[in-house]
Amino acid sequence: MTGEKIGLILLTGMPGSGKEEFVKVCAKRGIRMLRMGDFVRAEAAKQGLKMTDAEIGGFAQKMREEIGFDVWARRTAEALDDRLTLVDGLRGRAELQLFRSHTKAGITVVAIHSSPRMRYQRLQSRGRSDAPKTFEEFEQRDLRELRWGLGDVIARADHVIVNESTLEEFVKGAEAVLDEIVKA
Amino acid sequence: MTGEKIGLILLTGMPGSGKEEFVKVCAKRGIRMLRMGDFVRAEAAKQGLKMTDAEIGGFAQKMREEIGFDVWARRTAEALDDRLTLVDGLRGRAELQLFRSHTKAGITVVAIHSSPRMRYQRLQSRGRSDAPKTFEEFEQRDLRELRWGLGDVIARADHVIVNESTLEEFVKGAEAVLDEIVKA
Repeated sequence: MTGEKIGLILLTGMPGSGKEEFVKVCAKRGIRMLRMGDFVRAEAAKQGLKMTDAEIGGFAQKMREEIGFDVWARRTAEALDDRLTLVDGLRGRAELQLFRSHTKAGITVVAIHSSPRMRYQRLQSRGRSDAPKTFEEFEQRDLRELRWGLGDVIARADHVIVNESTLEEFVKGAEAVLDEIVKA
Repeated sequence: MTGEKIGLILLTGMPGSGKEEFVKVCAKRGIRMLRMGDFVRAEAAKQGLKMTDAEIGGFAQKMREEIGFDVWARRTAEALDDRLTLVDGLRGRAELQLFRSHTKAGITVVAIHSSPRMRYQRLQSRGRSDAPKTFEEFEQRDLRELRWGLGDVIARADHVIVNESTLEEFVKGAEAVLDEIVKA
């Protein structure tokens, strides 16, 4: 907002929106990346938990409820240095505030958007162990994710990239957004 | 979702995102339009209230709190017929559910997205009586709007049109979305 140089890109989006594709575009540019999910997995491993996707999700949630919603953002923020960094997995306003209080660098929020229909198809075709079996189950998962204010950070994102057609189209949009972020 | 013919387009977006530009594109196509705000204004006039934008907003909110969040959606839904209709002003999931229960036609949600920076500039340049005077005031207004789940309907919209560059670009995106809706 104030025109300072961007040091931190926070990536957000609903399940199945295609955040991973944006991560790949950033990786190709050599942008440093931290996944909030990796801090969850590291902690789970430390506690000797079985590592299915569904269990990881439940564990992340449990820690949020017990320690505080921003527990994973806090661990991620502690690993920031002065390089431009992409953080994957922003889920709510409290996390955004945590990052703001942890860095003096400019922060930009990038949201990836796909329609529910498209996301449902993608989650099913990925075939992960926590893929929704019915559209209703998918909607319930969406609602759980939204409970922490994920919709708020998507609605107020600095950049939204629509991921509804081809991968080429998406990559073009992602590159344009990154050009703008880097030149800012 | 089920591939039924779309009879109702619900338009949503944060303040200053440019919903009005989408309304214009629909108007040019001769699509029938209902504004939830008009039902608010009609009711306010009936009650003899002064009609500044700020007062209308406060009145709409008061009625939501007293009668129910979906009070305006309900009045709007009662005016639906079997023509394709654009409804401007979807603000939360309860409203979406109300519309779903009121019509057998297919419903599609279109969200317009612009960055906070862009929306703040637009709201200021519009110069309406309820324009935010500072960025902080603007953020507070955003948070009030989000309280009812506006972020949730934006995050789960069937179509998002990014309104961040030129009007021509936006109109192109809007036309493409309408083509898709009409052919569905």
